[in-house]
Amino acid sequence: MMMDDDMENGGLGPYQDRPRTFPNMRSKPYVPMIFRILMRINIRVLFVLLLLCLGVVFYIGASTSPIIVFVFSVCIITFILSIYLCKWVLSKDEGPPEMAQISDAIRDGAEGFFRTQYGTISKMACLLALVIFCIYLFRNTTPQQEASGIGRSNSACITVAAFLLGALCSGIAGYVGMWVSVRANVRVSSAARRSAREALQIAVRAGGFSAIVVVGMAVIGIAILYATFYVWLGVDTPGSMKVTDLPLLLVGYGFGASFVALFAQLGGGIYTKAADVGADLVGKVEQGIPEDDPRNPAVIADLVGDNVGDCAARGADLFESIAAEIISAMILGGTMVQRCKLENPSGFILFPLVVHSFDLVISSIGILSIRSSRDSSVKAPIEDPMAILQKGYSVTIVLAVLTFGASTRWLLYTEQAPSAWLNFALCGLVGIITAYIFVWITKYYTDYKHEPVRALALSSSTGHGTNIIAGVSLGLESTAPPVLVISVSIVSAYWLGQTSGLVDESGNPIGGLFGTAVATMGMLSTAAYVLTMDMFGPIADNAGGIVEMSQQPESVREITDVLDAVGNTTKATTKGFAIGSAALASFLLFSAYMDEVATFAQEPFKQVDIAIPEVFVGGLLGSMLIFLFSGWACSAVGKTAQEVVNEVRRQFIERPGIMEYKEKPDYARCVAIVASASLREMIKPGALAIISPLVIGLLFRILGYYTGHALLGAKVVAALLMFATVSGILMALFLNTAGGAWDNAKKFIETGALGGKGSDTHKAAVTGDTVGDPFKDTAGPSLHVLIKMLATITLVMAPIFL
Amino acid sequence: MMMDDDMENGGLGPYQDRPRTFPNMRSKPYVPMIFRILMRINIRVLFVLLLLCLGVVFYIGASTSPIIVFVFSVCIITFILSIYLCKWVLSKDEGPPEMAQISDAIRDGAEGFFRTQYGTISKMACLLALVIFCIYLFRNTTPQQEASGIGRSNSACITVAAFLLGALCSGIAGYVGMWVSVRANVRVSSAARRSAREALQIAVRAGGFSAIVVVGMAVIGIAILYATFYVWLGVDTPGSMKVTDLPLLLVGYGFGASFVALFAQLGGGIYTKAADVGADLVGKVEQGIPEDDPRNPAVIADLVGDNVGDCAARGADLFESIAAEIISAMILGGTMVQRCKLENPSGFILFPLVVHSFDLVISSIGILSIRSSRDSSVKAPIEDPMAILQKGYSVTIVLAVLTFGASTRWLLYTEQAPSAWLNFALCGLVGIITAYIFVWITKYYTDYKHEPVRALALSSSTGHGTNIIAGVSLGLESTAPPVLVISVSIVSAYWLGQTSGLVDESGNPIGGLFGTAVATMGMLSTAAYVLTMDMFGPIADNAGGIVEMSQQPESVREITDVLDAVGNTTKATTKGFAIGSAALASFLLFSAYMDEVATFAQEPFKQVDIAIPEVFVGGLLGSMLIFLFSGWACSAVGKTAQEVVNEVRRQFIERPGIMEYKEKPDYARCVAIVASASLREMIKPGALAIISPLVIGLLFRILGYYTGHALLGAKVVAALLMFATVSGILMALFLNTAGGAWDNAKKFIETGALGGKGSDTHKAAVTGDTVGDPFKDTAGPSLHVLIKMLATITLVMAPIFL
Repeated sequence: MMMDDDMENGGLGPYQDRPRTFPNMRSKPYVPMIFRILMRINIRVLFVLLLLCLGVVFYIGASTSPIIVFVFSVCIITFILSIYLCKWVLSKDEGPPEMAQISDAIRDGAEGFFRTQYGTISKMACLLALVIFCIYLFRNTTPQQEASGIGRSNSACITVAAFLLGALCSGIAGYVGMWVSVRANVRVSSAARRSAREALQIAVRAGGFSAIVVVGMAVIGIAILYATFYVWLGVDTPGSMKVTDLPLLLVGYGFGASFVALFAQLGGGIYTKAADVGADLVGKVEQGIPEDDPRNPAVIADLVGDNVGDCAARGADLFESIAAEIISAMILGGTMVQRCKLENPSGFILFPLVVHSFDLVISSIGILSIRSSRDSSVKAPIEDPMAILQKGYSVTIVLAVLTFGASTRWLLYTEQAPSAWLNFALCGLVGIITAYIFVWITKYYTDYKHEPVRALALSSSTGHGTNIIAGVSLGLESTAPPVLVISVSIVSAYWLGQTSGLVDESGNPIGGLFGTAVATMGMLSTAAYVLTMDMFGPIADNAGGIVEMSQQPESVREITDVLDAVGNTTKATTKGFAIGSAALASFLLFSAYMDEVATFAQEPFKQVDIAIPEVFVGGLLGSMLIFLFSGWACSAVGKTAQEVVNEVRRQFIERPGIMEYKEKPDYARCVAIVASASLREMIKPGALAIISPLVIGLLFRILGYYTGHALLGAKVVAALLMFATVSGILMALFLNTAGGAWDNAKKFIETGALGGKGSDTHKAAVTGDTVGDPFKDTAGPSLHVLIKMLATITLVMAPIFL
Repeated sequence: MMMDDDMENGGLGPYQDRPRTFPNMRSKPYVPMIFRILMRINIRVLFVLLLLCLGVVFYIGASTSPIIVFVFSVCIITFILSIYLCKWVLSKDEGPPEMAQISDAIRDGAEGFFRTQYGTISKMACLLALVIFCIYLFRNTTPQQEASGIGRSNSACITVAAFLLGALCSGIAGYVGMWVSVRANVRVSSAARRSAREALQIAVRAGGFSAIVVVGMAVIGIAILYATFYVWLGVDTPGSMKVTDLPLLLVGYGFGASFVALFAQLGGGIYTKAADVGADLVGKVEQGIPEDDPRNPAVIADLVGDNVGDCAARGADLFESIAAEIISAMILGGTMVQRCKLENPSGFILFPLVVHSFDLVISSIGILSIRSSRDSSVKAPIEDPMAILQKGYSVTIVLAVLTFGASTRWLLYTEQAPSAWLNFALCGLVGIITAYIFVWITKYYTDYKHEPVRALALSSSTGHGTNIIAGVSLGLESTAPPVLVISVSIVSAYWLGQTSGLVDESGNPIGGLFGTAVATMGMLSTAAYVLTMDMFGPIADNAGGIVEMSQQPESVREITDVLDAVGNTTKATTKGFAIGSAALASFLLFSAYMDEVATFAQEPFKQVDIAIPEVFVGGLLGSMLIFLFSGWACSAVGKTAQEVVNEVRRQFIERPGIMEYKEKPDYARCVAIVASASLREMIKPGALAIISPLVIGLLFRILGYYTGHALLGAKVVAALLMFATVSGILMALFLNTAGGAWDNAKKFIETGALGGKGSDTHKAAVTGDTVGDPFKDTAGPSLHVLIKMLATITLVMAPIFL
């Protein structure tokens, strides 16, 4: 939209002189308002302000617990490290002007979309904040709250503030992810002209920067909220709130984060895949030009999509995963400690924050362990980048096991049950192993080194139809091993927790759920490194696009191709990782929901009985929600892609010179079409996800009121949540794996197998890849977020079901 | 296999003289052993034997209840009517010899496959019977059983006998469906040469014959079992069993039926779609010859598939639906009556049998209302066959409402709650309306008169990929309305039942679940007519194939095309109907399971608490089961279809004369390949469905034993069952609707829209149709059966979880 004028007025004169590039695609630089304000302030004033803020934060932290101070310190140190990484990346050159111009166009498109998208999201967030405020103003208060003097207005303010802070942090996480990726992409392409290793290192460090910021912000945000509430409410002084109840106040933060993440993932996912599918269908299939060819009018939109869809959205997604997981573990820890009557509860409650602080440290080490080889100036033969990343991952995992053990000994040791910490350390190990197996399973089903993808590629030789049937079957089948693994790990972590020796007053073991929570933490204990590998993918993809568009020599393209292929695998494995942790986190949040309902209803709420018809109906509706949501997400991509196809076809017909590089395609129009369509299309599934649990809960609450069935609304919502979680996990596994397998089956054929590029087999495989795109990059990842969003929305909105 | 010799030795001489047909394709006629034995007996002896049997049956019935006598009489009268229908159909001519020859080849293929398939199934059934026997021999007995003197060996014998009888009846139901369809197909083709109306009438009456046999056999089988057990065990005499406990003994019958139906549907479904996809991919897509062209080597296999997949399997499916629904309603009726302490419990227990007796009567009237128009000898203009069938359906529905009301007043009137019968009549009305809306929703999403399919057809214009994405989204979205309808009907029927005035000893209303059961009966109260419409489809499809293969004039083909198109719609609507009733029936069987566990465990088992981690894991595994099963079913079709594609391609290459009608394709080889592959492929998903709930239940029982968690196995299995039911309903809705919509989008384009036949849009639509085939005809219908099989297997196998 912005670039429209420049591009139209750019004139074809100079363009035809240099027919191989497309200059003048950029507009005035855009800087968000907050940075503009900050930039206008004198640098010294800024520095003093920053120090002051830090001082206040540390002071509050110190009056809460030394653990909080530790968390703050680690976060700030790693933030400084991330600034170093960022500066290192930015110090690299942007390559020749044609590269920089393309990169500028991508940056404009991405920032323009981000601005509009987050504008819409923030309006919706404000509206929702108002709704939450009203609900909390008219809700019942719990006896505990009354005892501790937190009135309705106080609790409303706390929840809304937490919600808005969560939403803001999630937005920043997304922005940082995109900000660095639109800057790193061109630097990676430029470095690819020199050495593969350097290109890899830039992509990894750029990814590492945003990963550290994302994880660090989740940790420090929760820590600040916790410490502030602690000091403000005078926790643990006589007559006020108990520290074990504090984590429940943080739920709003998780909801804010997942609310923003849902729309970020939906909008970004629709954007990236609609542009990709549209570009491929006309460019690759109909016109037979390569991917990312500058003659394709949708190519800039496609490259923009990688940034807004994969970087920004995945940043928000992982931010939200970690936030939700920390908060749910804190709540469970608090509940357990309260029932155990332990001496010093802080260790159990703050344990998740410490685990993720260590996560930051060890992931930083893992990231820094990927170094340039000494002969970076010479064109060394391409090493396998996957092996390099894997080596870094191994370093991180080993450190994770060690630090996890140390943290359990430090924080979870209690006189009451001296061996409990060891059991919990084993729970953590279960989580780490689960994550490792998940990654392995995903690789098995989506990597063309293994049987499933090869069989899928073979099925393409009998046509489009058999390819799709085989891909769908592969995806459906591939749900089994992860589910078995997650089942074993839930049961075994629960069992380890139960046998930890922690007992309640009547001597019943009660550590089980906390054991599951610790396993989840173990699973996420290398989150920052995993996110780095994930962010690496779209940066490499974009770099490849820039190389192709600026018509660099084949050898450069080869390097970015190798990086891109590795990026595809790491992206797929992160999804396995994300869905595994979503499954565990949702189960924890579900338990927290049950506790919360019991507290507010002032009666025990321990069971959700699916033999009651209304509850069964709730479950049916919950599963249906997942199917409908996935359907809408896919159809949004399909519809938008059709618009793109029609536009690209129109341009090829109306400007026949494009194919001979004589005429300039109208990139901006494709960008504008995709942007406005994806903003429009993200509303429907997003609104469904938010409104339907509320409406269903309210309806059954009213029904329960008239039929004399107490807590019916809360029960139905609980069933909805559980069935939606289970169906969502399976559906997401199906969509992600099928999509990844189709993608790699195509890549396998492109290596020359079964007829290679251009054969009928390849065409069938491209169809599969097209179908897989919305599966694996729109509907699948949106489902991860949806599952956790449902868990947090029911927690925050619980008062309206009662 | 059998026809191999004849075909190979047939010589090409005479064949080349009459190049347009393929004679000598048939082998010696096959008659099942039981018929051969019967045929050897003198007809008078047979008649006397039959009368004797009838006498015994009526005597036993009369000593049980006058209601049973009524049921027997109705069944026997409609059986006589069905024999009339059958004779009427068989009295029609088989057309010219070329038609008869093709029809003979189809019959051979179908009967050969049926024989091998049911041979395998019966071996598995015997094995399973042995397992059941052993389990029951070592199980605990309930206090009631001990009180009534039914020992372990008695109860083992009863269960195994019921299981085997159910399996046998299901097999007969399948056989009858196929038997009549392979005979009616050629008569319909022959009649199509004369008049559309006559062809329609033959197809409807043939379908009606098997529908009446299927429904009648379910009813009379259960009635005979009930009456036999009643007399044998001396029910209601002092010191023996109570009549309210009797229905639980019938569960084995339902399990036997669903066991056979599962394998029948899997094997038949894989057969029909593998042949169809294989034939289409090479014939239509690669070679560009029309569907059912005699030059296609897989065409006979395709036509055989319609009979074994659609007729035989759907017969077994509906048989099992009705049996499961009758038994679960009888169990619930018995439980309720017992808790109400009603004077005369028989009315409530036998109500389902009466409803289905009326179903037989009114459906027969509906079938007979479709008559030849007077000018059947003249070629009258083609009327819309859909309108004719709809008129018959309307007649049936009106009669159903009336007879349903009458039955409730007759059987459910009780002094204790004088208005209860009215409430239950309203429940029945809810069911009938639900069925009607279901049919309407399915039509909306799968008929090309409406928006969704048109949008899907439009999406084919942008390529294979967008067509698939749009179809998947359509399928996923289409799950929402049926789920909303079923939710409303469950809740409202439950509410109507609760307010019926029936209360237990302490005054709590208890009619709710029975209300849901009555709604299910209402839904199935026109089952025989719906099954007729369903059977009509494959018969018309086959007739069309025979017309095409015997190269009849275009006008004849037009008539069968119209009938075929109507058949597609009726097939889709029956699936909606089947899945709706499966949802309700499973919910009822689930309640029966809870009751049974409580009885055997001798402690209350009222709640399945999904907040327990193991139970949650059970749910996760249950949903996973559905995904894995669907994946295996689809991949079985894909793999078999690939074998067919390779074989057909090989024949076209090795026998180039085929395309010029100069050489004869080797039909028998395709038939043999498909038959052996589908028998091989049906084992894996079938075994999964049967073994996994048992293994999971047993594992968690052991785990529960060691962790001191009572009834853990039973709870986990309950969660598995519920989650599998919910996921199964949604998955089946998705698969059926997506498949139907793709099919009709292709048909819509073939009417000339969007470029018509042969355009790129049409090719993309054919891909969608190919993908939809295993969705809608293999995986989808198998899921209906799976859901109910899971419910019955857990009921029968409950002892091993305790």
